[in-house]
Amino acid sequence: MLHLYHADHSTCSQKVRFCMAEKGLEFSENKIDLALKEQLEPAYLKINPNGVIPTLIHDGNIIIDSSVICEYLEEVFPEIPLSPSTALGRAQMRKWMRYIEEVPTSAVRFPSFNMAFLPRFDGLTDQQFIEQQADVRPLRNGFFRRMGRNGFVDEDIEASFEQITKTTSRMEQALADGPWLLGEIYTLADIIIAPLIDRMADLGLSYLWNDDCPRVNDWFIRIQARPAFDKAFYIGSRLTEFIEIRPWSRHEHE
Amino acid sequence: MLHLYHADHSTCSQKVRFCMAEKGLEFSENKIDLALKEQLEPAYLKINPNGVIPTLIHDGNIIIDSSVICEYLEEVFPEIPLSPSTALGRAQMRKWMRYIEEVPTSAVRFPSFNMAFLPRFDGLTDQQFIEQQADVRPLRNGFFRRMGRNGFVDEDIEASFEQITKTTSRMEQALADGPWLLGEIYTLADIIIAPLIDRMADLGLSYLWNDDCPRVNDWFIRIQARPAFDKAFYIGSRLTEFIEIRPWSRHEHE
Repeated sequence: MLHLYHADHSTCSQKVRFCMAEKGLEFSENKIDLALKEQLEPAYLKINPNGVIPTLIHDGNIIIDSSVICEYLEEVFPEIPLSPSTALGRAQMRKWMRYIEEVPTSAVRFPSFNMAFLPRFDGLTDQQFIEQQADVRPLRNGFFRRMGRNGFVDEDIEASFEQITKTTSRMEQALADGPWLLGEIYTLADIIIAPLIDRMADLGLSYLWNDDCPRVNDWFIRIQARPAFDKAFYIGSRLTEFIEIRPWSRHEHE
Repeated sequence: MLHLYHADHSTCSQKVRFCMAEKGLEFSENKIDLALKEQLEPAYLKINPNGVIPTLIHDGNIIIDSSVICEYLEEVFPEIPLSPSTALGRAQMRKWMRYIEEVPTSAVRFPSFNMAFLPRFDGLTDQQFIEQQADVRPLRNGFFRRMGRNGFVDEDIEASFEQITKTTSRMEQALADGPWLLGEIYTLADIIIAPLIDRMADLGLSYLWNDDCPRVNDWFIRIQARPAFDKAFYIGSRLTEFIEIRPWSRHEHE
């Protein structure tokens, strides 16, 4: 039995939902309210000490970290394969996965917070923000401290945009060899980067690559055409469906 | 045939050397001079577009990213296993590997640069530093920009120390169940965190955990007692052997 702790709009949750949908796996669920910091409650921290989502429970065993969960599902449910069959091919896939974690996964958080999530901190003083929002996070305390309650400075946002265009340039180059990042084979690398591209598009930021990366645009159309896509990115998964999006520049707030 | 592009003192190179030594694998090598930015030369960027070391060449195939290389070696040379035999066990190992990449691998770079590598930038103006040292790096340009030629501010260093103590606390807790991070089994998780602990000790910073983490201290003694350890951490692998270590506080330089 598979049980997922996740949130509709969390990109890391979407990575795992998309992987499960491709494999035709059903799951029961706990939806975590990130605005209420439910992922930081003691009972949840006991199963996921990083205080982030998603977490998968499989037959009573706890598996954390979205890319680790995807590789686990790949090993336990190999019937619909989403990775190459050779060690070298898997290394090429994992090279992408590590890059996706280090560069775009981290980069999309910056505009996401400035444009969508800052109102969560309305009414807090700077000191309250540090104590109640930043320092309580086991993994992301530094990120929250840097953001502050007024959001990231323009320089940080521009650096994150640069990381995104670096990523899409690299994708554009890889996609010369086939419909997917590894060529003919559709893999976890395509799956875990899809929610990040989707998020940037949702925020209206796809202009960062649209003109320069025709192959990325075609790849994204192919991704969205997969039956599993709609299953993972159901209605309610996009920020624009329930949050008023603001400009990315740092802004004073209530 | 195995060929490694690496540097004696690079912690990510040490991860791979340690893994290969445990498996009894011999390799030929190219030593990369990081001070001369040899990892950013066009010929090297062609094999490793991230412009970082190490890179492994195996029978003509290129494998990059230290943790990807270790998992590749694990799959191709399974005779001496360094990972659990079950999918669940491997997920536990990879959970540690992802945490090690996100938290301590990143954290040890901050004191390493302030205490050892800043003199590389002597004589550069701020503008020259940005152009010649920061923006030429495909992966670490943001890190270098933040550092600047005078090093990281105390706040950044203290945040990195906090990440280190979080890591050693987590290790201390895990080590209650056995001699290694996953209990009875010695794995890639132990191997890839060892160079980070070793670096912190080399910089004289092991006081950050010494008093609070007796199990980590014992674990490190066990690690150092492994025959493979000396093979990977040969003379010349420690910064204190060839660089004058300075205090970690930000300092004006030439």
